[in-house]
Amino acid sequence: MLRQRLLTTVSTRRVIAPAVARVHTTVGRGTTLSSLRPTIVRSPLLGAVRTPKPQFRVLATKGDEKPLKRRSKLARALFKTFAFCGFATLTIGGAIVAFFVYDASTYKDEADESDLAVPQLALSPRRGGPKNLPIAEILVDDDGDEAQKLLDKPRLVVLGSGWGSVALLKNINPENYHVTVISPSNYFLYTPLLPSATVGTLEVRSLIEPIRSITGKINAHFLKANAESVDFSEKLVEVSQIGPDGKSRSFYVPYDKLIVGVGSKTRTHGVEGLEHVNFLKDVNDARMIRKKVIENFEQACLPTTTDEERRRLLSFVVCGGGPTGVEFAAELFDMLNEDLTLRYPRILRNEVSVHIVQSRSHILNTYDEALSRYAEDRFSRQQIDVLTNARVSKIEEDKVIFTQQEGGKIITKELPFGLCLWSTGVAQTDFCQRIAELLDVQKNSHALETDSHLRLLGTPMGDVYAIGDCSTVQNNITSHITEFLKHVAWEQGIKDEKSIRLTFDQWRKIVPRIRKRFPQTTDHLRRLDKLFEAYDEDNSGTLEFDELKKLLEKIDSKLTSLPATAQRAHQQGQYLARKLNKLAQATPGLEMNDIVDGDVDDAVYKAFVYKHLGSLAYVGNAAVFDTGISGLSFGGGLIFLYLWRSVYFAQSVSARTRMLLAMDWGKRALFGRDLMNF
Amino acid sequence: MLRQRLLTTVSTRRVIAPAVARVHTTVGRGTTLSSLRPTIVRSPLLGAVRTPKPQFRVLATKGDEKPLKRRSKLARALFKTFAFCGFATLTIGGAIVAFFVYDASTYKDEADESDLAVPQLALSPRRGGPKNLPIAEILVDDDGDEAQKLLDKPRLVVLGSGWGSVALLKNINPENYHVTVISPSNYFLYTPLLPSATVGTLEVRSLIEPIRSITGKINAHFLKANAESVDFSEKLVEVSQIGPDGKSRSFYVPYDKLIVGVGSKTRTHGVEGLEHVNFLKDVNDARMIRKKVIENFEQACLPTTTDEERRRLLSFVVCGGGPTGVEFAAELFDMLNEDLTLRYPRILRNEVSVHIVQSRSHILNTYDEALSRYAEDRFSRQQIDVLTNARVSKIEEDKVIFTQQEGGKIITKELPFGLCLWSTGVAQTDFCQRIAELLDVQKNSHALETDSHLRLLGTPMGDVYAIGDCSTVQNNITSHITEFLKHVAWEQGIKDEKSIRLTFDQWRKIVPRIRKRFPQTTDHLRRLDKLFEAYDEDNSGTLEFDELKKLLEKIDSKLTSLPATAQRAHQQGQYLARKLNKLAQATPGLEMNDIVDGDVDDAVYKAFVYKHLGSLAYVGNAAVFDTGISGLSFGGGLIFLYLWRSVYFAQSVSARTRMLLAMDWGKRALFGRDLMNF
Repeated sequence: MLRQRLLTTVSTRRVIAPAVARVHTTVGRGTTLSSLRPTIVRSPLLGAVRTPKPQFRVLATKGDEKPLKRRSKLARALFKTFAFCGFATLTIGGAIVAFFVYDASTYKDEADESDLAVPQLALSPRRGGPKNLPIAEILVDDDGDEAQKLLDKPRLVVLGSGWGSVALLKNINPENYHVTVISPSNYFLYTPLLPSATVGTLEVRSLIEPIRSITGKINAHFLKANAESVDFSEKLVEVSQIGPDGKSRSFYVPYDKLIVGVGSKTRTHGVEGLEHVNFLKDVNDARMIRKKVIENFEQACLPTTTDEERRRLLSFVVCGGGPTGVEFAAELFDMLNEDLTLRYPRILRNEVSVHIVQSRSHILNTYDEALSRYAEDRFSRQQIDVLTNARVSKIEEDKVIFTQQEGGKIITKELPFGLCLWSTGVAQTDFCQRIAELLDVQKNSHALETDSHLRLLGTPMGDVYAIGDCSTVQNNITSHITEFLKHVAWEQGIKDEKSIRLTFDQWRKIVPRIRKRFPQTTDHLRRLDKLFEAYDEDNSGTLEFDELKKLLEKIDSKLTSLPATAQRAHQQGQYLARKLNKLAQATPGLEMNDIVDGDVDDAVYKAFVYKHLGSLAYVGNAAVFDTGISGLSFGGGLIFLYLWRSVYFAQSVSARTRMLLAMDWGKRALFGRDLMNF
Repeated sequence: MLRQRLLTTVSTRRVIAPAVARVHTTVGRGTTLSSLRPTIVRSPLLGAVRTPKPQFRVLATKGDEKPLKRRSKLARALFKTFAFCGFATLTIGGAIVAFFVYDASTYKDEADESDLAVPQLALSPRRGGPKNLPIAEILVDDDGDEAQKLLDKPRLVVLGSGWGSVALLKNINPENYHVTVISPSNYFLYTPLLPSATVGTLEVRSLIEPIRSITGKINAHFLKANAESVDFSEKLVEVSQIGPDGKSRSFYVPYDKLIVGVGSKTRTHGVEGLEHVNFLKDVNDARMIRKKVIENFEQACLPTTTDEERRRLLSFVVCGGGPTGVEFAAELFDMLNEDLTLRYPRILRNEVSVHIVQSRSHILNTYDEALSRYAEDRFSRQQIDVLTNARVSKIEEDKVIFTQQEGGKIITKELPFGLCLWSTGVAQTDFCQRIAELLDVQKNSHALETDSHLRLLGTPMGDVYAIGDCSTVQNNITSHITEFLKHVAWEQGIKDEKSIRLTFDQWRKIVPRIRKRFPQTTDHLRRLDKLFEAYDEDNSGTLEFDELKKLLEKIDSKLTSLPATAQRAHQQGQYLARKLNKLAQATPGLEMNDIVDGDVDDAVYKAFVYKHLGSLAYVGNAAVFDTGISGLSFGGGLIFLYLWRSVYFAQSVSARTRMLLAMDWGKRALFGRDLMNF
């Protein structure tokens, strides 16, 4: 029995037949069973019984070394191969089985029924406000048992579901606020990769993440609706949505803190005929472009299409040489180059043309000049036609009319198109225009102005914030100078600020306050002695009012407005969440006396500072990286394409979108872009 | 130097420190370098130099066995672990590197420019036909250098890009025909899984395959356009499509063989108000349903939505208890049960209702009764409301009006709905109606009638075939009896077929011809002696005209029409491709004298026989399988769900769709269905 056991265990260990045969021989040649007994040990790892190897080695040297050696080599090789194959199969098989076991656990047959305490106030909200609309104080997903407690919580209302809002939601402490997000889209869109979705390099669903999966994590509420207006005095947001009867219905959402992060729309520059062009702001824009590009291919194949029509259908014009326009042109060209000829008649490829109409002298003009040139060189090699210093004057049904300087003269030209993308910067949404009109100080027609604490200028209580594309931080220090100098004069006991004079010591003490109030001036307020010397024009040893004013105006002129990018919105959202967390904790204990100028925000948290982390752009199987540090910009071919993807992959919003992105890129490599439209 | 080399190589082999140390000791203990020299061999696999193992074993036995043994065990364990980890890393890393190397090879920077010989006739086609339209004899993707040769090739025109057409394209020999496919969709849709795409279990792009990737393989042409009509005498298909100017343009495509595989539309049963319901025939239908379901969820969350409205928004009504309706209800219910509560307020789940309105006494009424009952039981446990014997009389904007028998009385009821799916069988498309009107013998209002060779009845030259949902094989033997018996009478030298009499021997000789002509009768013409006996009512030993007629009519009544399924269309497409391949090769050598009744099709290939391979349906985390053999139908939970998926996975049209299907199923398990709409 023991012998049998030994054989079994040895064969368990080695699995394959030759090894078993060898042990057979060895054990058979007069070895007593008792002499083998102590060598049987139990492996803690395998749980199976095994004999340690040296035992066999000693046995093996007793006379029959040669045949054993030969067998042993074969056995060893076979063992290794089989063991590896077996292990690999087991690992992969195990992973598959594990996945199926997990998968099986995700199906639910029976609904989990449970009593729900839906708050009565959510089902029949009270009416009020200037328009006597329902006021949504409590929502259907609030816990009815805690309704009273919830009513006492400060209400944080976030308008929009873009970069700023999501960064805020990911960083806010849900304990402090009753959070409600209002947006017409129930997803967050990963905008930087949107150009890839226009030609099927990526699928649109890989770029979006349900906003409810983000709000869900912090027990925030989401309402798919449009913000229409704000009543700043009663602290109510007016919201509307098409109701179940197909008619628009309005209601109020009350707030204690309101965040406006509604983004922007495309700037028209007053050009007529934009009903004939495509935009690229949202997933539906990407879908429409993809559909139309392929439809043009199909029409170009029909026997009734003339040569001229075919050339027009296959002429793609991009108005705007910024990152979006450039990336779209690059993606489109890649598709035309890599996939079109695989599926469509070759004549299409020969008649395709891509044009970029750019008003400045370079494309990507906010980037390092070397990068602009790199992109232009690349495009000219790829026969993408870059038209610089060209201003679009009108769009007709099938052509772009534009003017271009040539030898000092301005010449009007036209470009027929099958598809025209209009991506020429951002403009204010209707909602922002409406609330800007309600506030006297809001004069900027491009964006809502905020102070450096991101508070919307002109709101009476400083409880409305604006972030992202829809906002701009008020850099206009000059307009604040008078007020600021008044304050300084008052501190020095001078009645008329015009007779102010600052010694170097006084100047040195004032600067930190300027820096704190306008953090972006920090870089320009470094060498205080040199500045003082340079602007003390009369060498009086003091800065007089006029000299001081000139100095501050100079600094003001050096400040640029923040870019309308995902990066900026993200930083603002993050900043605001941190401040709101601090505010919620600090306010109750904070005496008004401790607060400078009664400014709670300023007392608990620093002003917003934008840190530019660089820009990157895809330029057609290549990418450019502008780090913002001069001399440290770079770009190039495939390696940089992979780097570009890695950056966006790493920054992507969730594990789900990351997996989908990787899949989409893999799919493109294996099967190409699928040219189907519906 | 040699010693150093040896050490290096050993450490190369074993990687880890202890092993190196041991060799150090061994070599250090007085072994001459020359004695080691012959043991240095070059491994062909690793390319590195290694010492064979036995050398060390022999050295090891010389006195210092114990310390070596201890180290050896540790080393062995470590070696194995490290080796495995290293190997695994190398394998995975290697696979990733290999993929990136492959991926890098798929990008193209420069366009491959080459001279194109586009046939002049394709660019400016001649005009002709009854409407003097352009005739597309040669297309832009034809080779201009071979234009004359192509003009001589027989032209095969395929209308539609569904199951039948694709099966045909995959089996046709491209050498024989100049093939052109015409369809309004540039993709093939894998219809059986369409219900899964309505709720995001699968994505629509995973269900479709570019038709151009199928036509590309056989050098066939594709035109994205609508077939409008056929001129049977001049052999021209009239095709129309919206041109680049936005207006409809028409042209002719000439054919030698025409295949009609245009599918069907949803049957209305004359019910009014269908503008308020959704259908489920195409990918856009699935997209619209998904969008609307989620929109309803969002509306149900708004504070302005009343309780009654919420219940209506969340009431989903399916009209039609066939596989499509049942699978949609099942998919919808799974989503409601598994994903809704994760993202949306729980009140929604509590107020959701799903209803199936079925006119027959059971859902899935074409399936085995046990399976119908299984599905009904399952649905009743899941609180899916199955209303049988219910006839929809009218659809209003937000409710279905239907009548139901209750205790012998017919009662009119109504069901409010937020979304209503109408899936109640198939009807003829407009194109089919138009061509049926052109042919006198086409009287069936539901489908185009063909003979058992799938030739459209009534066409003068027998060169038009109809396959799939749009067609039905003419089973009406009775109407052919007179002709058939005439033929028999003529063969027997009898002038009036009414005075015909068949002896058993004559009967036995005639049966194979009936079987050949109507293959579906085979099952009913097995026991010829019994049949003869049974219908020889006067026991005369012969079958007279009336007896023969009665017998054939009886068989006729037993034949059922073919189901409107993917399976049937697929078999017909495959059959037709094989026949067309034979026809192309056989016709030239075939003398008309050899052909019975001048029927070339009949001479070269057998008639079409439908082989039912079974039906399957998804019934909500479970599936049922009807094999068509009584007693061999089965169904059940998860295991059958996986089986159901496996069947469709295996049958899927390409490697691409298979990968996408697997990904989608995995995605659902990991992240749930994404409830975003746009």
